[in-house]
Amino acid sequence: MSEVNHKYRIAIDAMGGDNAPAVEIEGAIQAASKVRAELILVGDEAKIKSEFLKHRKIPDNIKVVHASEVIEMHEPPAQSIRRKKNSSINIAVNLVKDKHADAVISAGNTGAVVCATTLFLGPLNGVERPGIMVTMPTLKGPVALIDAGANIDPKPEHLLNYAIMAGVYMKYIFKRPNPSIGLLNVGEEEYKGTDFIKEAFKLMEQAKINFSGNVEGRDIFAGKCDVIVCDGFVGNVVLKVSEGVADALKKMFKQKLSSSPLAMLGAILSRGALVSLKKDMDYAEYGGALLLGINGICIISHGGSSAKAIKNAIRVAYESLENNVNQHIIEEMSKQENIARG
Amino acid sequence: MSEVNHKYRIAIDAMGGDNAPAVEIEGAIQAASKVRAELILVGDEAKIKSEFLKHRKIPDNIKVVHASEVIEMHEPPAQSIRRKKNSSINIAVNLVKDKHADAVISAGNTGAVVCATTLFLGPLNGVERPGIMVTMPTLKGPVALIDAGANIDPKPEHLLNYAIMAGVYMKYIFKRPNPSIGLLNVGEEEYKGTDFIKEAFKLMEQAKINFSGNVEGRDIFAGKCDVIVCDGFVGNVVLKVSEGVADALKKMFKQKLSSSPLAMLGAILSRGALVSLKKDMDYAEYGGALLLGINGICIISHGGSSAKAIKNAIRVAYESLENNVNQHIIEEMSKQENIARG
Repeated sequence: MSEVNHKYRIAIDAMGGDNAPAVEIEGAIQAASKVRAELILVGDEAKIKSEFLKHRKIPDNIKVVHASEVIEMHEPPAQSIRRKKNSSINIAVNLVKDKHADAVISAGNTGAVVCATTLFLGPLNGVERPGIMVTMPTLKGPVALIDAGANIDPKPEHLLNYAIMAGVYMKYIFKRPNPSIGLLNVGEEEYKGTDFIKEAFKLMEQAKINFSGNVEGRDIFAGKCDVIVCDGFVGNVVLKVSEGVADALKKMFKQKLSSSPLAMLGAILSRGALVSLKKDMDYAEYGGALLLGINGICIISHGGSSAKAIKNAIRVAYESLENNVNQHIIEEMSKQENIARG
Repeated sequence: MSEVNHKYRIAIDAMGGDNAPAVEIEGAIQAASKVRAELILVGDEAKIKSEFLKHRKIPDNIKVVHASEVIEMHEPPAQSIRRKKNSSINIAVNLVKDKHADAVISAGNTGAVVCATTLFLGPLNGVERPGIMVTMPTLKGPVALIDAGANIDPKPEHLLNYAIMAGVYMKYIFKRPNPSIGLLNVGEEEYKGTDFIKEAFKLMEQAKINFSGNVEGRDIFAGKCDVIVCDGFVGNVVLKVSEGVADALKKMFKQKLSSSPLAMLGAILSRGALVSLKKDMDYAEYGGALLLGINGICIISHGGSSAKAIKNAIRVAYESLENNVNQHIIEEMSKQENIARG
């Protein structure tokens, strides 16, 4: 295999999430032919190799790096990172630190991934705090929500960091020329919100961004802005509430349908629309969340990720590398600083 | 008409919301025969009387009280309450203060209603801060979310107030014998959350309530608890995000359906299920939010309320009066205090 096919190296925590390592391996196999990258599965070598036997052929650009420990989903992040030095998360992140990989993907303990990357890779030049960015489906295409939970008690300056970073992502990945930024608040009026939000509002108004002012919860899915900024507590709740509503609606609809044969026939006929809608709303399609602002590309996938979600996480990591997202963030941050100094 | 039919008097701000006074009048007419209460429409008498002409007959238990001013939706609450003494909100709330009414309903400026009731009616005995409670549809029937925005910067003690008050409501109105209380957080583990949340967790653990611990955003619509407690900033965002997701899904589904004739036929056949689902998810069915903890019954309806929503708000006010919700809250608060002292 020529070096041309190995433009990047992407480390995948093979032990993270509810369905590890099966979905990580399946996802990597699905992605292998689609990216010019080496895919490094990090985890229990024996388990991974035994899972390999279920597949006809393992592509040449998939490698394995052994990790003897696993950080479980509910372990306290900082502690477990310190104690389990041989965990798949630690080893995968350190592959990036030691320049053996360009990106890391994990569907494991989100807090542990944030801790490990912050500790071992550090922030990008000019960034004070990394933030978790998720893209959400809306009537006008995907929008970015940041922070979905990296920092539940940030300072107003951090929200400006988030706005700039997610703006860069939307510009270079989703090709929105001048991404609009909304601050999530309880009302549109400038006088609304906590002191924290009012301070963030002022900073954003003064920054060199396309600031649209305050937006409300219902504006997110209307696609009113390209980027929605909030603290990590609120963002985490928003993400999980959205999943919860969509899921509950789906189940309720199914329940209703099964209550009448005519309705069931109708459901079969309109199945195409339902499947297509499901795809639009499917977080797996979007491949997970990006931890923006660290010195390396880091994708945090949902704990319940499917193989497709892992495949898409690999695509998102690859696109971020191909489009130099981090370099653009550094440049944008330095522009903002020059203005602050000027 | 005999006094028996006028067990209570309910003041309705006829000038609040996007469709006033038409929906308030229509809603009052729809409710008039269903409640043993006098319904007092408060607002511009000329406008109300002219709207009356559109109806064949105005029931005897509907009255009008004139108010010459209106507080608009986007006016700063505290200021407008002070300046517009003759606003429909001020006058409707003062009807309760002066014992000319037992409950007040408004689809107008939420902040102004919270301000006016807090200022003129004051808190119930033992309550430090009122909270806005909404009931949300879930797979297991309605759950209560509190606070949906009365106080965006509360203290941990206020969250315990909310828990107790909404618990009383779920017990006496929805007949849940021992309502379970969940604290909205970014994870289930006790170590998760901000210092504020951890402090609220401790207070709830020690209180005489059926505390289920932390719950996540996705648990709300799964119906995991009877009551979900959070600060007013988060609650407001949750409420609006839920509306936004449901609305976006509906629009996306319609879009998909109209793209194929077969799918459209299917949609017609499964229409019954869709309509029934829509009813389950329809906030109008639930009649709006209760401001719990003030000395009087206060219902805050959605700005976009339909006549049906107003009708249901009247029903909710009536049920709260019939079931002595406020008396039960006072008793429950005093039990908690006795424990704290004991």
